[in-house]
Amino acid sequence: MRIFGIDPGSRRTGYGCIERQGSRHTLVVCGTLSGPAQATFPEKLKAIHAGLTALLAQHRPECVAIEDIFHHRQAQNPGSALRLGEARGVALLAAAEAGVPVVTYPPATVKLAVVGYGRAEKQQVQQMIKLLLGLDAPPSPHDVADALAVALCHLQSSTGTVAQLHASRSRTGTPRSWRDYIP
Amino acid sequence: MRIFGIDPGSRRTGYGCIERQGSRHTLVVCGTLSGPAQATFPEKLKAIHAGLTALLAQHRPECVAIEDIFHHRQAQNPGSALRLGEARGVALLAAAEAGVPVVTYPPATVKLAVVGYGRAEKQQVQQMIKLLLGLDAPPSPHDVADALAVALCHLQSSTGTVAQLHASRSRTGTPRSWRDYIP
Repeated sequence: MRIFGIDPGSRRTGYGCIERQGSRHTLVVCGTLSGPAQATFPEKLKAIHAGLTALLAQHRPECVAIEDIFHHRQAQNPGSALRLGEARGVALLAAAEAGVPVVTYPPATVKLAVVGYGRAEKQQVQQMIKLLLGLDAPPSPHDVADALAVALCHLQSSTGTVAQLHASRSRTGTPRSWRDYIP
Repeated sequence: MRIFGIDPGSRRTGYGCIERQGSRHTLVVCGTLSGPAQATFPEKLKAIHAGLTALLAQHRPECVAIEDIFHHRQAQNPGSALRLGEARGVALLAAAEAGVPVVTYPPATVKLAVVGYGRAEKQQVQQMIKLLLGLDAPPSPHDVADALAVALCHLQSSTGTVAQLHASRSRTGTPRSWRDYIP
């Protein structure tokens, strides 16, 4: 089972794909997408859309997981909410065009599933992603960790319990860098 | 000169294309786009994006005009702002993919250009669009009139004055229904 998490943002959109085999979670790919700094805003959206379209075609996930931004911190400010909405619209479009269903989770549910605490800080999320995926360092920037967190949250909800998710982190082998998964 | 106005909305996106020849403004096409009522939200965005992409390819406007939603009434509510942003993101993407530049105007500027009053009501905008384009009835729903209004606003700003826009409404010929321009 392969889940593709997206953390949309107009300046930078984080993504991360995770595969579950049995109780083991493996990082498939992760990174950020953004347009050229000097590009117009529509051109930046085009770059994000094109990037997501290519990644979804290449990695063929069963599902796209994305935070339910109605509860998002940024969504409290109408100006930020609009820009966030624009990037999110383009991400949802890429999923629909790829024929991949979209699931959404409130940020508190994602944090609860990954860290065990609904109001966890970004650094705690990054640290838990490192542990759960057996990486040698926390994924950075936090957009990447957040995208991986929502993907893990969906894997957890489809396996059943937070306990199961956390049980899967005892793994053998050498920790790899999350940087190895950036295309 | 051909301008394509868009009034984005996740439930219904209005659009209208206007051509200027000399001082004369002609309606080229107008209407609304929406997904099937039972479709998922990403599927609705896909329908809006596909519709806009087809219309831009068919009518090849010089420019896409869209309201600057940072000043939009709906943008004052974060929940509405997010949904509005999602539809707007998809509209901006369609323009960027078609290689058409995007211009934005604050709602008050659009109303000032079309009605002569920055806080005009929706009905006043609809009535003025009817007059300025020589139609037999005001375009409806208001999403269509709003899309035509922002397109007219750009034509006005590129010709120079509100006076010029209003001078162009004295036209000969039988008023046609705006319904004739729905594809």
